[in-house]
Amino acid sequence: MSGFDYISDPKEIYNDSFAQIRAEADLGKFSSDEQEIAIRMIHACGMVDLVDDLMFSNDAVTSGRAALADAGAIFCDVEMVKAGIIKRLLPRDSAIICSLNDKGVQENAVELGTTRSAAAVEFWQKYTDDFEKSIIVIGNAPTALFHLLDEIAAGHPKPALIIGCPVGFVGAMESKDALIANDLDIPFIALKGRRGGSAIACSALNALAGGLG
Amino acid sequence: MSGFDYISDPKEIYNDSFAQIRAEADLGKFSSDEQEIAIRMIHACGMVDLVDDLMFSNDAVTSGRAALADAGAIFCDVEMVKAGIIKRLLPRDSAIICSLNDKGVQENAVELGTTRSAAAVEFWQKYTDDFEKSIIVIGNAPTALFHLLDEIAAGHPKPALIIGCPVGFVGAMESKDALIANDLDIPFIALKGRRGGSAIACSALNALAGGLG
Repeated sequence: MSGFDYISDPKEIYNDSFAQIRAEADLGKFSSDEQEIAIRMIHACGMVDLVDDLMFSNDAVTSGRAALADAGAIFCDVEMVKAGIIKRLLPRDSAIICSLNDKGVQENAVELGTTRSAAAVEFWQKYTDDFEKSIIVIGNAPTALFHLLDEIAAGHPKPALIIGCPVGFVGAMESKDALIANDLDIPFIALKGRRGGSAIACSALNALAGGLG
Repeated sequence: MSGFDYISDPKEIYNDSFAQIRAEADLGKFSSDEQEIAIRMIHACGMVDLVDDLMFSNDAVTSGRAALADAGAIFCDVEMVKAGIIKRLLPRDSAIICSLNDKGVQENAVELGTTRSAAAVEFWQKYTDDFEKSIIVIGNAPTALFHLLDEIAAGHPKPALIIGCPVGFVGAMESKDALIANDLDIPFIALKGRRGGSAIACSALNALAGGLG
């Protein structure tokens, strides 16, 4: 029926993809749980050398999975990240929140002299009474990550995990370096350097939730 | 107020980002319109060497901009692409459609022995009487791109532009090579190789709509 000869069976596509990634990527420095997350992140961007820049704090997988098992909220910096989270993989009915378009965010951004993404971070705490069991997924805005770290340094509650994959040329590398330096002792998964993005960020969350299943 | 020293003004972030990209990326092979699109795509992924794999058909920008000016529909393979399209940049009120979760797609996929993404392509034509002025944005599924090309080869109408950025290890490179070979004479923007993804794909559409504004 088809003019092109290609693999169309979804299960075969996944299995073949993961096998290629395992064959090519240098996964030896990761635990087996971390490997599952690394494989999904590589799968999301097509680059096996992502492992060179991928960092996990020791407690990232444990803390993140405990938060999901406890139905902790998931906060996303942009709608694209929210759209990429596969709900059926979540063990509980976690709220998935992007406050970027909340009423008042634009005004708050102007007042603070910052981006909407950073201003939107200030709206997260009102969505949950238990921010300590929430997971933050940042796939776009370095300013959102900086703003969150500043809030926590000023005494705000810490989340259970930060997945830090902001992307780009201004502040992305620096914001992730600050996360990785981990002066605040927060579990993290982070991608060093300029690379990042919504697809890579939410693939880490999806892998945390569902492994390679 | 902030513990970190970083640029927080949105306009300054954009300008500084675009200046870095212009300084580092080898944009000389592109027209000035194509450069705007290339810069936005690089901005979306943090990789200046994206230009090595980025291909435009001669008529891509002209045909794509004419379609947007004519309020052509925009079809996306996944919800993440749809979420990343910046509506305020569109010159007209184009419909933005992702049929992946339409009723009957899953059954159609099982029947055809293919992915939901590919099966969802068959639902596009019913959304518009004028498929010739629509734009296709594929940021995830090689099978969706193959399926669309197969449909067109079988006599279905051609769209005004295909933005082909499926990502990954099984079929992504091959599906984009088929698009670039352009046996069907369809305007395209494509990223060769394994790299791609929703963020890169919709950044091309956003640049087409709004330039670097």
